[in-house]
Amino acid sequence: MPLMTKDDYLSTLKNLKSRIFIQGKPLPNVLDNPISRPPAMAMAETYYQAEQEEMKPLFTARSHFTGEIINRFAHIQRSNEDLVKKIYMLREMGRRTACCFQRCAGMDCMNTLYSITYDIDQQFSTPYHQRFTDFLKYIQRNDLVPAACMTDAKGDRNFSPSQQTDRDQYLHLVEEKKNGIVVRGAKLHITGGVNSHELIVIPTRALQEEEKEYAVAFAIPANTKGITFVYGRQPSDTRRLEEGQADVGNLVFGGCESLVVFEDVFIPEERIFMKGEVSFAARLVELFATQHRVSYGGCKVGVGDVLIGATAAIAEMQGTEKAGHVKDKLAEMIHLNETLHAAALAGALKGSRTASGSYSVDRLMANVCKLNVTRFPFEISRLAQDIAGGILVTMPSREDQENPEVGHYVRKYLVGKAGVESDKRMRILRLIENITLGTGAVSYLTESIHGAGSPQAQKIMITRMADLGTAKSYAYKLCGL
Amino acid sequence: MPLMTKDDYLSTLKNLKSRIFIQGKPLPNVLDNPISRPPAMAMAETYYQAEQEEMKPLFTARSHFTGEIINRFAHIQRSNEDLVKKIYMLREMGRRTACCFQRCAGMDCMNTLYSITYDIDQQFSTPYHQRFTDFLKYIQRNDLVPAACMTDAKGDRNFSPSQQTDRDQYLHLVEEKKNGIVVRGAKLHITGGVNSHELIVIPTRALQEEEKEYAVAFAIPANTKGITFVYGRQPSDTRRLEEGQADVGNLVFGGCESLVVFEDVFIPEERIFMKGEVSFAARLVELFATQHRVSYGGCKVGVGDVLIGATAAIAEMQGTEKAGHVKDKLAEMIHLNETLHAAALAGALKGSRTASGSYSVDRLMANVCKLNVTRFPFEISRLAQDIAGGILVTMPSREDQENPEVGHYVRKYLVGKAGVESDKRMRILRLIENITLGTGAVSYLTESIHGAGSPQAQKIMITRMADLGTAKSYAYKLCGL
Amino acid sequence: MPLMTKDDYLSTLKNLKSRIFIQGKPLPNVLDNPISRPPAMAMAETYYQAEQEEMKPLFTARSHFTGEIINRFAHIQRSNEDLVKKIYMLREMGRRTACCFQRCAGMDCMNTLYSITYDIDQQFSTPYHQRFTDFLKYIQRNDLVPAACMTDAKGDRNFSPSQQTDRDQYLHLVEEKKNGIVVRGAKLHITGGVNSHELIVIPTRALQEEEKEYAVAFAIPANTKGITFVYGRQPSDTRRLEEGQADVGNLVFGGCESLVVFEDVFIPEERIFMKGEVSFAARLVELFATQHRVSYGGCKVGVGDVLIGATAAIAEMQGTEKAGHVKDKLAEMIHLNETLHAAALAGALKGSRTASGSYSVDRLMANVCKLNVTRFPFEISRLAQDIAGGILVTMPSREDQENPEVGHYVRKYLVGKAGVESDKRMRILRLIENITLGTGAVSYLTESIHGAGSPQAQKIMITRMADLGTAKSYAYKLCGL
Amino acid sequence: MPLMTKDDYLSTLKNLKSRIFIQGKPLPNVLDNPISRPPAMAMAETYYQAEQEEMKPLFTARSHFTGEIINRFAHIQRSNEDLVKKIYMLREMGRRTACCFQRCAGMDCMNTLYSITYDIDQQFSTPYHQRFTDFLKYIQRNDLVPAACMTDAKGDRNFSPSQQTDRDQYLHLVEEKKNGIVVRGAKLHITGGVNSHELIVIPTRALQEEEKEYAVAFAIPANTKGITFVYGRQPSDTRRLEEGQADVGNLVFGGCESLVVFEDVFIPEERIFMKGEVSFAARLVELFATQHRVSYGGCKVGVGDVLIGATAAIAEMQGTEKAGHVKDKLAEMIHLNETLHAAALAGALKGSRTASGSYSVDRLMANVCKLNVTRFPFEISRLAQDIAGGILVTMPSREDQENPEVGHYVRKYLVGKAGVESDKRMRILRLIENITLGTGAVSYLTESIHGAGSPQAQKIMITRMADLGTAKSYAYKLCGL
Repeated sequence: MPLMTKDDYLSTLKNLKSRIFIQGKPLPNVLDNPISRPPAMAMAETYYQAEQEEMKPLFTARSHFTGEIINRFAHIQRSNEDLVKKIYMLREMGRRTACCFQRCAGMDCMNTLYSITYDIDQQFSTPYHQRFTDFLKYIQRNDLVPAACMTDAKGDRNFSPSQQTDRDQYLHLVEEKKNGIVVRGAKLHITGGVNSHELIVIPTRALQEEEKEYAVAFAIPANTKGITFVYGRQPSDTRRLEEGQADVGNLVFGGCESLVVFEDVFIPEERIFMKGEVSFAARLVELFATQHRVSYGGCKVGVGDVLIGATAAIAEMQGTEKAGHVKDKLAEMIHLNETLHAAALAGALKGSRTASGSYSVDRLMANVCKLNVTRFPFEISRLAQDIAGGILVTMPSREDQENPEVGHYVRKYLVGKAGVESDKRMRILRLIENITLGTGAVSYLTESIHGAGSPQAQKIMITRMADLGTAKSYAYKLCGL
Repeated sequence: MPLMTKDDYLSTLKNLKSRIFIQGKPLPNVLDNPISRPPAMAMAETYYQAEQEEMKPLFTARSHFTGEIINRFAHIQRSNEDLVKKIYMLREMGRRTACCFQRCAGMDCMNTLYSITYDIDQQFSTPYHQRFTDFLKYIQRNDLVPAACMTDAKGDRNFSPSQQTDRDQYLHLVEEKKNGIVVRGAKLHITGGVNSHELIVIPTRALQEEEKEYAVAFAIPANTKGITFVYGRQPSDTRRLEEGQADVGNLVFGGCESLVVFEDVFIPEERIFMKGEVSFAARLVELFATQHRVSYGGCKVGVGDVLIGATAAIAEMQGTEKAGHVKDKLAEMIHLNETLHAAALAGALKGSRTASGSYSVDRLMANVCKLNVTRFPFEISRLAQDIAGGILVTMPSREDQENPEVGHYVRKYLVGKAGVESDKRMRILRLIENITLGTGAVSYLTESIHGAGSPQAQKIMITRMADLGTAKSYAYKLCGL
Repeated sequence: MPLMTKDDYLSTLKNLKSRIFIQGKPLPNVLDNPISRPPAMAMAETYYQAEQEEMKPLFTARSHFTGEIINRFAHIQRSNEDLVKKIYMLREMGRRTACCFQRCAGMDCMNTLYSITYDIDQQFSTPYHQRFTDFLKYIQRNDLVPAACMTDAKGDRNFSPSQQTDRDQYLHLVEEKKNGIVVRGAKLHITGGVNSHELIVIPTRALQEEEKEYAVAFAIPANTKGITFVYGRQPSDTRRLEEGQADVGNLVFGGCESLVVFEDVFIPEERIFMKGEVSFAARLVELFATQHRVSYGGCKVGVGDVLIGATAAIAEMQGTEKAGHVKDKLAEMIHLNETLHAAALAGALKGSRTASGSYSVDRLMANVCKLNVTRFPFEISRLAQDIAGGILVTMPSREDQENPEVGHYVRKYLVGKAGVESDKRMRILRLIENITLGTGAVSYLTESIHGAGSPQAQKIMITRMADLGTAKSYAYKLCGL
Repeated sequence: MPLMTKDDYLSTLKNLKSRIFIQGKPLPNVLDNPISRPPAMAMAETYYQAEQEEMKPLFTARSHFTGEIINRFAHIQRSNEDLVKKIYMLREMGRRTACCFQRCAGMDCMNTLYSITYDIDQQFSTPYHQRFTDFLKYIQRNDLVPAACMTDAKGDRNFSPSQQTDRDQYLHLVEEKKNGIVVRGAKLHITGGVNSHELIVIPTRALQEEEKEYAVAFAIPANTKGITFVYGRQPSDTRRLEEGQADVGNLVFGGCESLVVFEDVFIPEERIFMKGEVSFAARLVELFATQHRVSYGGCKVGVGDVLIGATAAIAEMQGTEKAGHVKDKLAEMIHLNETLHAAALAGALKGSRTASGSYSVDRLMANVCKLNVTRFPFEISRLAQDIAGGILVTMPSREDQENPEVGHYVRKYLVGKAGVESDKRMRILRLIENITLGTGAVSYLTESIHGAGSPQAQKIMITRMADLGTAKSYAYKLCGL
């Protein structure tokens, strides 16, 4: 059965040898560095859950190619039920990691290419769908993780790719070779790339006829020659380097993004899924965005669950859980969190079959979901901090608690309600800090705005997807026009 | 086939002879009064749509008793698909009437009693489920409308029913007779009661052991002796009395509510569905609230569609449709409207089977849906008014437009962008006024807050439904507790 | 002393004989029609308050021309204290009328012209300031009300005045005569014009060099030949025509707007304050907007006070005043209302002297104030309706309460908490309905968006007034640039 | 002239020798540790600005004791103008430091005690006002900084001080000695204590008659025997420990809070300002809260200015500054920021004289100001992150930019619009990160909620300060009651 264990996944990382830099130094192995290990552990959790008997219905699926049981992250969605289960699975992962676990962009990208390559072939009689299917079978068979690489550097945003002074600002084909092509450029904000076996590269925007060189999509092993990762910093990331990691908040997991540079990388023919079909660039981008935007109504909601749980816990520890305003704020947090989830589920419920046979979520609901995600986590965080109290950002290090000279002060004066030791209280507070102001805030807050496209992109799509013509006709009729 | 035509429904109203008062005068026939006619027409539209071939999949269903095709408003939901279709049907009705069409409270109440009578019988070996089933078959067979009567007068809200000085403040059993019971009290905010054939009465709150007399549920023809309706006023209701109805905005439809007084009304035994089982009062109320709260994610969304359509239309007529801020506000209106819909659909998707075999929506999502409904229509209205412009509330009557002395001024100076006559513009503006400040605002705004329970009721349920224990356990685990 | 009594003001209205139409019929006298009388009474209240000894410090001021005590509404502000007192006076008027009392646009317009005519003269050696001063002395001496007429019909908003097919869409000079000019066009949304003695007309937007004919400002008696008012409709306006006016909510006061048509009206030279100085049109508009935008932080706040009071009262009557969520919502209503006030006061505090010697409020704060006004009254209204309950829009007419057949039902079942009769409860509810859904909502809601310019206008000004250059320099310095 | 220079202030810190622990280690000198140095530098800036000629009108005042020019932070406010100038000074400091500069709590506390000691003396004929005046003269003469110490540990919040199992949870008098008293307990969230010369200690809540031992107020040098500071952690605080401090964002300044433990500290009689007058505890707390709550409408607004400036700068660098939605969001940020400021200024404008002769701001506006502060900075931050883009949290370290192997990649692909080097862009982004997710977020976000009291405290005060009785009377009158 093509399910890799968590341990096996971690082993593959040891042998991966991708070229990575972090804070000005090479990072030979992500598992050996306390900063880059938690993201790997979060990714590993997607393997771990698929091993658990009670989680198999959610975390595994049956490959429509082979009929074998595979990890759902490698699955092509074939029904509305598949679309729904994906959301549930992502929420579950969010709950267990409280961070970005980095495997959904690849999943959503594979589902996108499965459909788009089919469409391109229909129009241009190209061989992309078969090639992509072969790649996909390889991924499924070996239970590998591909990272989706989409956003280009973009240079001056007032100019299109072909208008840039430095043409490398958008990744592009620089040379055609006999058995493949050579590409150059860089992709930003690449989630989980440093823990991934493969990279899938797609264009980041609509392209003009004269921009064929930018219309390239392909997959390539992450450790291919010419590829360099530069690891992105996060707030409080170096707390993980401190002895004892007393103040990390989230003890095991974290997310990561990086800048991925492609310096004249050779892509063999069989891994090329688009080459010059500019008219499909916009459709690819839009379909990927659609698929990915509902994902946020799963994963962020799961992180929200943890934050809500932590907030309920700290209220109890501090003895404020029965205050009317605290109950009201907790209800509001839950309400907002479930509203995020609702639009994702509605998107799945209203999803439909693509020409390729895969299923895609409703485009209007996907954008509605994501637009809420760009807002509500900030309000949920604010309410969490309101309930947690100022101690969230003024408390000593948990190291002080162990210090022989002042430790007893900390233990005495940071005690909670009867029976709650300071350490318990501080651990929960550090977790809330992690999610709202620390490494966790990267994905829970900022990335909630920008991941899968910024709010303005959603607003444009929402208007485009809405049927204003029909809406107007109802209005006309009712007022006698 | 037990589907009544729209015309037949209107005929039944002529013969109904319920005892109704409006503005201090008797109302012998709702169809003859320009104020009470639009609500009847809105109700009639639920019949009309079921007659239309292309609408049958939504507006009709197959009775699980008889296998016959019935109006979906009289249907017991038997699957998640049924739950979803209900939402779609309600949105469709909202689009076509832009008001409260009054038939869903009865539908939701029947689905509630179907399940609760089953549960009571299981515990107390009572005969309620069979009685209710008989009643339901009668409704289905004749395609009748029952209005749900729930909210009591309540007197001083700090006291429970049995603590009230005037015990009639909650409807109650005053006498047991051989073949039935006698009840007294009043129900407030009864939607569509004046257009309905039957009234279904249920308790409005949890009851104590000593409050058996208040634990009564039953159905009774609306024109039964002892029942009096006092028609509720609405903003701008009397514009319908003006000659030509130039400024009504919504030319055909409207909603209505009334105070329904029960003065020693006799209820025959076979129509009694609860009598003294106080422990089931809270469950009944909660199940009805749940079912009804998602309905708002259908009907209000449909009204929202009309308002959005009208707003898009007025922007075009006034030549502002391409302004960035106008596009942004329209996108926001659509976004909020679809967010309302999303939670209703999610509630249907996550719905489950009751012991009786009927299906009920997810309780958490139902409350999330409704809580959003208490907020977003106000913001959507504000944005509509923003785009419409101040002319919405300063323009002359459409009668002035016809006046020989000043009509030419109105036609000249209220003209829109090239080609748009003042009359067109004023009609759309009057429709927006209707929905945001007129008769339509009753259901689109105020009733969005209070119908199916006020915001605070939803907040309490949201916290109760959320699994905070599990949420806390995730938090504990991640921070090492 | 040049202070007119309330009664004298009402007498002047009787003799005014402006040409007014309402709902397709002539309106010979505003006081004789129950719809147009309340606006006149609201205006009259500005006279009444100035008569009250304890109100004189607020409602009167000393004319800087004559040293005589005049109504503050006719005063040129000469200090920050004057600016502050204006805000307090407007709040006081809002509290006493709960509607638009219509006299501030004229006041703000006079203060604007006082300053702008001075500036025009400085540049063009024109005689406008003296002319305007003469007019102003006349107003002060006789304690008259001038209505400000600004907004043109605008036709297609994508075109400037000179690009319109129908050039009358912006009021303009059509002929120069020996002793004056002839103008044609129409002004929309003219507040209080039908109750005013004079009209002051100013341009509505920036003008181009070729648009000299639109750059006209002047004052003219409201009953001048060629001027026609068409009275604007309001929600529930005709409740005032019902016998007993049982359901009007606000028993005495109301606001009004109208369309004012100028058909070839002759303006004598001494009343012309701008003629062709296109470069000053934008400055005039901006200064008027600035002065007027802070006014909303007075009057609307006063109406907010009434709505808050009514909401607190209904909570008490219904026995919910101690519920935590009710207290929280009341606190929120007060908070939002005072936030509106704060920016108006800050605008006055930061106000400064113009070249003419008059004082003008801070332009940034004026726009901040108004932008909040476009939002908060809607939320305050929503909260008021939340606390009031659904009964707000479902209750019978107060006429039903008097009916011999059903009156006892209404009195019995609409009773409040012990001791509160249904009539008391219904009166307060009708007042809340008036402000949030009735005639009062025109000014409290819609006009809060559009009066003194729409939100987008404020956003543009806010950015323009903010010193982003300095803000950037602070940022650069802190990060080492 | 009693103005200390910045350098002299820093010298005093070197000699202070307060007992401080940080992350489990002693901190002998705050200036020598890169984490604790920026807070000291921020405090020092209050001295530096007072040295600048053009800043003297804002940063200095004339002592009403001596007539000498003193730092305004040591001044007793004697007029509305003083109240206004305080707000302007704090905004200016916020702009120059983008953090909490820690000197206002002491200032507000001194102004509070000046008034309250006067009031106590009036009632109890105590000698507190004279004692406090002596202390104040000492502070003014030597231009010293006292930190305000208010919030106790609180233990179980459901119990009052005297009900706590561990009575030290509220600081209290443990022994009366001949010339003074001994106190024990701890104060949390003490802003700037580690950089301060003196500590002023006051109660944190209303007290009962039997809680006299908790009703103590006094001042004491920060380095007094028995006092221990435990330094609070902040997000990303250790970036300051990294070589080159490449990613700190704010290069110079920061804020700090600490836990301050009083272990049997002796307080000499002449420094005691309250001892057992329980009835004044609540008044003291409320007056301090009032004074301090408006301060937030100064300092946070200044930080907001920097964030707005940084956001405008990054938009320009990235070439998005002309996009409609970016302009709209910047306008919104400015609008919210100025709304915060407005209520502070209104509070100062409406401020009034206390019995002692000092001036205090309006209590209603002070709470309105602070309640807005608990909300808007979160929205401003969200908008800043929206405009900044995802790069804010995914970009490499600025160290990577210098690395010989990957530096050229970073410089190439993180370049901005023509002419903007990656380093410039990254510096601004790091500053935005600092304020919204780093050390700066402690005061800009979390402390905006909790400093000077949490939102619920403001809500309670807002309702208490509002004149609901009068508001109700207006409503009654208008509806005929």
